[in-house]
Amino acid sequence: MVKYKIILQYDGTRLNGWQKQGNTENTVQGKLERLLSELAGQPVAVQGASRTDAGVHAAAQVADFSLPQPCDCDYLLSYMNDRLPRDIAVQSVSTVPLRFHSRHSAHAKTYVYRIWNGPVRSVFDRQYQWYIPAGPQLQNGKIIEIPPLDVNAMGQAAADFTGTHDFGAFCTKRQAKKSSVRTVYGAAVEQDGPALRITFRGSGFLYNMVRIMVGTLVEIGTGERPANDVPRILAQGDRAAAGMTAPPCGLTLTDITYL
Amino acid sequence: MVKYKIILQYDGTRLNGWQKQGNTENTVQGKLERLLSELAGQPVAVQGASRTDAGVHAAAQVADFSLPQPCDCDYLLSYMNDRLPRDIAVQSVSTVPLRFHSRHSAHAKTYVYRIWNGPVRSVFDRQYQWYIPAGPQLQNGKIIEIPPLDVNAMGQAAADFTGTHDFGAFCTKRQAKKSSVRTVYGAAVEQDGPALRITFRGSGFLYNMVRIMVGTLVEIGTGERPANDVPRILAQGDRAAAGMTAPPCGLTLTDITYL
Repeated sequence: MVKYKIILQYDGTRLNGWQKQGNTENTVQGKLERLLSELAGQPVAVQGASRTDAGVHAAAQVADFSLPQPCDCDYLLSYMNDRLPRDIAVQSVSTVPLRFHSRHSAHAKTYVYRIWNGPVRSVFDRQYQWYIPAGPQLQNGKIIEIPPLDVNAMGQAAADFTGTHDFGAFCTKRQAKKSSVRTVYGAAVEQDGPALRITFRGSGFLYNMVRIMVGTLVEIGTGERPANDVPRILAQGDRAAAGMTAPPCGLTLTDITYL
Repeated sequence: MVKYKIILQYDGTRLNGWQKQGNTENTVQGKLERLLSELAGQPVAVQGASRTDAGVHAAAQVADFSLPQPCDCDYLLSYMNDRLPRDIAVQSVSTVPLRFHSRHSAHAKTYVYRIWNGPVRSVFDRQYQWYIPAGPQLQNGKIIEIPPLDVNAMGQAAADFTGTHDFGAFCTKRQAKKSSVRTVYGAAVEQDGPALRITFRGSGFLYNMVRIMVGTLVEIGTGERPANDVPRILAQGDRAAAGMTAPPCGLTLTDITYL
């Protein structure tokens, strides 16, 4: 057996997420397992570092699999990319020790959430952003002025996510027996005109956790919530206390670090 | 009558180009005319600065139209964007003198052609680039090494396009009675790893001219043609002497300058 590590990109727009689910074929894991099983002539299981949701993108997802016979890495790279649809591309293939495990060996994961907060949608990045209108907007036949998000308040609130906390309030479909304690190493909000980038780096994230943190930050940015609301929500531990779940299109898994 | 100038973006992937053609509704001009005619209650003609082909993108197309009654620019902007599909967005609306004409008043147009020249496709920009494989590639079950494009040779050749020339060789469906003399103010090839950007700035461009110039530069980059081939093709004036027409997906209209 030889174990391989791959780094891959995908545009999640038309995909049903990373994880294969029953007969749902339109998942990244399902597509990779099918073509690798064909190559190996026997079932090949592919493990991913992060189970990205339907609609979420990856700039650098990591996955691993084992093949019964050694295979040239350049050959594997071309073989997979020739057979994958154009919204998925393997960027690199390398051999790793058999003890390597994409998810368990990961030290940190980084997600970036992009928001476009201006009077006009962006055309070229429309599939990779959450559009939140600001500025003059037509409502019921009249022009009203929508204030931009309060990025300073959002940045202050984002800092409250850093550290080790029970993130139970920031999780959908919480599993009673599993710990919802995670460590966020860093959270930051950057602005470049109408473009906002919210970056989270952490040991791992619960189901929908990044999207609920973003939804909460946006409610702080619109003034619906105070800037100091995050510690209260964390302490309360109740999903209903946190904000909405931001749409998946704005979210991209950008890095997975191994020590 | 009040005349308006708009600057707009569109992703050309699913569009049938700028210019309306008979019953073909899926054009930018056709969509704009329909929604403005509805607003005005009478037919409104929209003039575009550049008749981009099907599949070509625009980051800053300019167009103009006249309305019988004055209309608030913010209102017009929101009105149009609320009714346009998500792959078209008007970025700004302003009033202009009645003598303004998007195409005739234009001093210069800039087009950028993007190529991705590496071992693996880029996922996120796949609709805005021409993918030309380089590096190890699987062909008939074996790995062969495809050399990258010779960017220096392409840059040298691009410089030969600058100046005033008869570009008849770089034009599809040439019209016998119309001049094919144009002035190219600048042409440059930039490289950032596998990403190439070819920029052309000129007084105006013939039908398919940028795409044929790019196709010719690529044939120089692969070594099929010598780096000094452009003056010969220009002198010959024959479409058959020039290179292939590069695919539309890589091309974006990025700027139109008015003095």
